[in-house]
Amino acid sequence: SSIKVLIITASDSASSGKSQDLSGPEIQRILQHHGYQDISTIVLPDDGAQIRQTVQDHSGRGAIDWIITTGGTGFGVKDRTPEAISPLIERHASGIVHLLLSASMKHTPFAALSRPVAGTIKNTLVVTLPGSVKAVRENMEALLSDGVVAHAIDLIKGGSGKQVHA
Amino acid sequence: SSIKVLIITASDSASSGKSQDLSGPEIQRILQHHGYQDISTIVLPDDGAQIRQTVQDHSGRGAIDWIITTGGTGFGVKDRTPEAISPLIERHASGIVHLLLSASMKHTPFAALSRPVAGTIKNTLVVTLPGSVKAVRENMEALLSDGVVAHAIDLIKGGSGKQVHA
Amino acid sequence: SSIKVLIITASDSASSGKSQDLSGPEIQRILQHHGYQDISTIVLPDDGAQIRQTVQDHSGRGAIDWIITTGGTGFGVKDRTPEAISPLIERHASGIVHLLLSASMKHTPFAALSRPVAGTIKNTLVVTLPGSVKAVRENMEALLSDGVVAHAIDLIKGGSGKQVHA
Ligand code: NA
Repeated sequence: SSIKVLIITASDSASSGKSQDLSGPEIQRILQHHGYQDISTIVLPDDGAQIRQTVQDHSGRGAIDWIITTGGTGFGVKDRTPEAISPLIERHASGIVHLLLSASMKHTPFAALSRPVAGTIKNTLVVTLPGSVKAVRENMEALLSDGVVAHAIDLIKGGSGKQVHA
Repeated sequence: SSIKVLIITASDSASSGKSQDLSGPEIQRILQHHGYQDISTIVLPDDGAQIRQTVQDHSGRGAIDWIITTGGTGFGVKDRTPEAISPLIERHASGIVHLLLSASMKHTPFAALSRPVAGTIKNTLVVTLPGSVKAVRENMEALLSDGVVAHAIDLIKGGSGKQVHA
Repeated sequence: SSIKVLIITASDSASSGKSQDLSGPEIQRILQHHGYQDISTIVLPDDGAQIRQTVQDHSGRGAIDWIITTGGTGFGVKDRTPEAISPLIERHASGIVHLLLSASMKHTPFAALSRPVAGTIKNTLVVTLPGSVKAVRENMEALLSDGVVAHAIDLIKGGSGKQVHA
């Protein structure tokens, strides 16, 4: 069974049509390049309640396997994606947070301005990425490297971790 | 006064005798190689309540100085060791978590699949290691390197941090 | 408008006059070297309630932009600065914690003995540094490198992140 992914772009301007969402489509392109086929996307405003509700609605067995958010992880006054999602997380994944930050800091110390959270909600993996296309590329490469996330998702769904291909 | 260590192996199969516990004995061997002499071991099933109770029973002054768990830090459906222990931690140790993850990620990106927590409960240091023998070796080397953990335990017990040998 | 900084030294001995505070003045010297001009300092005992109250009193719009603490992040029995401040933090900054720890661990594995927290309280950035002068230098260099923190503060105050000079 293939991995079902939901990409949530958190952006007031993309949600209202004032700007074009570039990071969501970039995540989708990278996933497709790695063989992922079952991908949905949604663009939301920087609204904590809407982000939380959407993540909650799509978490659990039979729902989405991997929710990836982009945007709202920084220090801007509207950046509240981690705060929207963190209370839903049942098992926090310090290792994935470390992987994301280490990967980005190899490129720039400004990676320190992201405040990612990651973990599981029921049988769904949730990871919060920054809003910039460049950061998204660095983070997705780290997550997909050697099938790291595919391995995690197999385990979350009750597998042995041996079946690591998307 | 020597450092008292308790190694808790969290594993359904090792607890029931269906498999042999390899990681607990490996931790014990490494500790003994570094001069630690007062080491107890216990094997528990992947049961959050039992793990939490055992950690609580052995924390505090006059009890165990250092509790090391192995197993249950991953994404498997039964992996709940961090969730069992985290609520007991009074002072979370982000530095030790960083050390563990950095040490393992030098070897493999799959280290991101561990979700370690660490910190103090009363006068006891608690550190959660993954279940694999390889990961245990990498993590123990990082913790024992230059007497890092011995220094922490001396401080936790009220010392000046100058007495750093086991 | 310039960035307003408050340096809080947490130390029983410095507070009582039994020792000289070296880390607070070192932070001030480094900030001045980087063009920061509006700097206040306060020396408090290792008292969680006083530290928390002081941070709370100086957080928010129109108050201090950046609160830097030094001391109380280790494993000593009186080290409770992170515990004093963490409950006040509204947006935890995993990236800044990662930056601090990565920067220090390049120099020594003993950096793992710090337990930093960082994040925003209203419109104020709060970062907890260790008490040693050497660690303070390593951490401040990382934070000021390329204007990382100046960028964060501009965003926290409602800016676009383009205005990155102190
Ligand atoms: Na690192």
